[in-house]
Amino acid sequence: MELFFENTSLISEKEILQTAKGLMPYYEYLRSVSESGDYDFPESSINLAFDEDQLKNAIRLQKEKTTGDLKYILVVGIGGSNLGAKSVYDALYGYFDVMEAARFPKMIFADTNDPEFLNSLTQFLKTGISKPEEIIVNAISKSGLTTETMVNLEIITDILKEKFEGALSRIVVTTDSKSDLWKGAQEKDISILEIPKNVGGRYSVLSTVGLFPLLLCGVDTEGLINGARKMRTRCLSDDFMKNPAVMSAAILFYHFKRGKNICDNFFFHPEMESLGKWYRQLMGESIGKEKDDAGNIINTGITPTVSVGSVDLHSVAQLYLGGPKDKFTTFIWGYTDGDEKIVPKKGSFSELLALGAGGKKPSYIMKAIYDGVKIAYGKAGLPFMEIAFEGINAFSLGEFFQFKMMEMMFLGKLMKINAFNQPNVESYKIETGKILGNS
Amino acid sequence: MELFFENTSLISEKEILQTAKGLMPYYEYLRSVSESGDYDFPESSINLAFDEDQLKNAIRLQKEKTTGDLKYILVVGIGGSNLGAKSVYDALYGYFDVMEAARFPKMIFADTNDPEFLNSLTQFLKTGISKPEEIIVNAISKSGLTTETMVNLEIITDILKEKFEGALSRIVVTTDSKSDLWKGAQEKDISILEIPKNVGGRYSVLSTVGLFPLLLCGVDTEGLINGARKMRTRCLSDDFMKNPAVMSAAILFYHFKRGKNICDNFFFHPEMESLGKWYRQLMGESIGKEKDDAGNIINTGITPTVSVGSVDLHSVAQLYLGGPKDKFTTFIWGYTDGDEKIVPKKGSFSELLALGAGGKKPSYIMKAIYDGVKIAYGKAGLPFMEIAFEGINAFSLGEFFQFKMMEMMFLGKLMKINAFNQPNVESYKIETGKILGNS
Repeated sequence: MELFFENTSLISEKEILQTAKGLMPYYEYLRSVSESGDYDFPESSINLAFDEDQLKNAIRLQKEKTTGDLKYILVVGIGGSNLGAKSVYDALYGYFDVMEAARFPKMIFADTNDPEFLNSLTQFLKTGISKPEEIIVNAISKSGLTTETMVNLEIITDILKEKFEGALSRIVVTTDSKSDLWKGAQEKDISILEIPKNVGGRYSVLSTVGLFPLLLCGVDTEGLINGARKMRTRCLSDDFMKNPAVMSAAILFYHFKRGKNICDNFFFHPEMESLGKWYRQLMGESIGKEKDDAGNIINTGITPTVSVGSVDLHSVAQLYLGGPKDKFTTFIWGYTDGDEKIVPKKGSFSELLALGAGGKKPSYIMKAIYDGVKIAYGKAGLPFMEIAFEGINAFSLGEFFQFKMMEMMFLGKLMKINAFNQPNVESYKIETGKILGNS
Repeated sequence: MELFFENTSLISEKEILQTAKGLMPYYEYLRSVSESGDYDFPESSINLAFDEDQLKNAIRLQKEKTTGDLKYILVVGIGGSNLGAKSVYDALYGYFDVMEAARFPKMIFADTNDPEFLNSLTQFLKTGISKPEEIIVNAISKSGLTTETMVNLEIITDILKEKFEGALSRIVVTTDSKSDLWKGAQEKDISILEIPKNVGGRYSVLSTVGLFPLLLCGVDTEGLINGARKMRTRCLSDDFMKNPAVMSAAILFYHFKRGKNICDNFFFHPEMESLGKWYRQLMGESIGKEKDDAGNIINTGITPTVSVGSVDLHSVAQLYLGGPKDKFTTFIWGYTDGDEKIVPKKGSFSELLALGAGGKKPSYIMKAIYDGVKIAYGKAGLPFMEIAFEGINAFSLGEFFQFKMMEMMFLGKLMKINAFNQPNVESYKIETGKILGNS
């Protein structure tokens, strides 16, 4: 993974270093967290990729639970509990699911309690599974108190129990060792994976939360971990101009301070849209804050948006290119180098093909569109940076996760807020609790 | 469909009418467009639902082309050419596709030229279709010059021709009668559906563009049209307080003028996310403008975002509730009244269920969450309005489409911009053309 920002981010090296210079003490602290290797700090998620137990425990359970018969992994979780696994699954497999009907295993995500979804899921569980070995249910909740997750788990368990003897053996719970869900699962002899303490949902993708379901569907989790390891080393470099997390955080902060309240993440591969949603949570929850570190009310934050190329060029590009200059953009592009079906040179509608498209690979055409967009952004004076993946694979995704999680820690420090809590979501939960409790 | 805004939109009836009052001449003009019933005006899309030929032509071709063997509708189009059909398909069927593997026909959308997607699609066409009757390819491009669409059409046609005799008879082209694509298709005896002149992509869902693919997959297109008709009548009421398009436009404009540069559309049913993306294009392209009607450079626009409940409560709600007050929110909720699997009262993990959730329908729990969120927004001083669907069905979707397209016309008038063009997207197309042409 490479990060490019020279010339396009409309900020000089001097200004970047000026913005980043206050980060040195925090950087030193992060180094000490990484040297400790343990989970005593809010930032401890940076140690996950180096914690061999995470992957080992997931592999052990994968071996124990699966045979070649596995067809469906039903992930029961919401927010940080499923967005990481979903982003990897969709990028590598899920986006193509309908066209690849015979490819198994497939992942299904039960997140909210949408009645239409649950009706379809109920029907599916009743008629689409013929033996217990075809399914694993992985319920993920750090606290074990997430309403949607517990409701879905109850409904799913109920159906499976009616259908199969020993249905509970097809459930794996991923939770905090101090949660009531842990205790409940233990009493019922349900398999459990631990989420290390101090690893919050949005920083948990490299823990058992992400690793276990991804292992089940055949993702190269070692590649994922190796990408994250390599990236942590880069993001712990004290040569800030070579440290992508510091650079990126400084650039985002600089433009935020100058009125850009939207950060658009423009992925030029539609299968990476879910990765964008993972990042959207990471940024939204981490730096969208009512109060600063000192407790002053500041109502701060950058609104992250996800765009998809080239689809959204035919949707919101008019707004982006002509509208208000309230956005900083990060383009994400992945190089492709496999076999491709070439566009016919003499096709059925050749006269209508854009000059130069016939006889080319689709990846070449996409690159031409992408490059055209970058030039247009430059001419319109719109600041951006670029993230280039070497390929859309587990290694690159591991790099991206680690890069962005560390970027967010640095950005939180620059914004003087706590990047690890989410106090304001309690406000609606309290009201919902009153309604459910009063009924 | 009902629109609620009293008390929650933080704008008084007097202020709404004050904002809307300049709209009277445009309203009179829209009435005259509706009375003409033809396609001579930029606003002519408001006549689509009353143009019986649109649906008749689509039905005629549906009958001609389909037998009970139809399994896949491959929609080749991008932006306004596919977002409407996709939003209906996903709301009613598509969101459940992976769980409903045996339900046909299914829609597949070939929009961009993503190499990974095209590899999967190529494989699918080669091995997933056993006879021509199983597939219809519907290529949609008003100009016939959309690069991605023409590239995909060439690739798909090439594969099908290799596979089947008479493959061209499985293609239907939807385009402008003056386009080169029309001529090209005519020469090859390919079936054609016309897009009426002056109906741009983002206003085309109620034309053959949306109707034909939706008919093929069994959508109640009459219900869709009836919903749109009923809504046009409401949006042509001169009692502005009862005219949802005028109300909504006035409220959005009022808050935009007071610094809210983001309009969040928060759908409380995940299957409606694609509907949000349809609206995102409609708003982004229609009012994101460099210049006003008089040609002054103003770089204006509201950035539309799409959120999904309850998923995004676990993602960006912290930002929305605690972060900067730069958003106006529209919640979209649909009442559900079918059979539902009840949450077990004495389940496997009862002790962990939120008080009151056991023994309830999922729709009840979702409503409690939704109501909790609305109360929290109110307490945080965040302005919002609500759209309530009577159910998630074709009729409600037709209402929504017509409502929002007319809202956008009124909003464009308030913002003093042209809501029907998209001049700035040319800038990247020119650069891309240079790259492709030079190669």
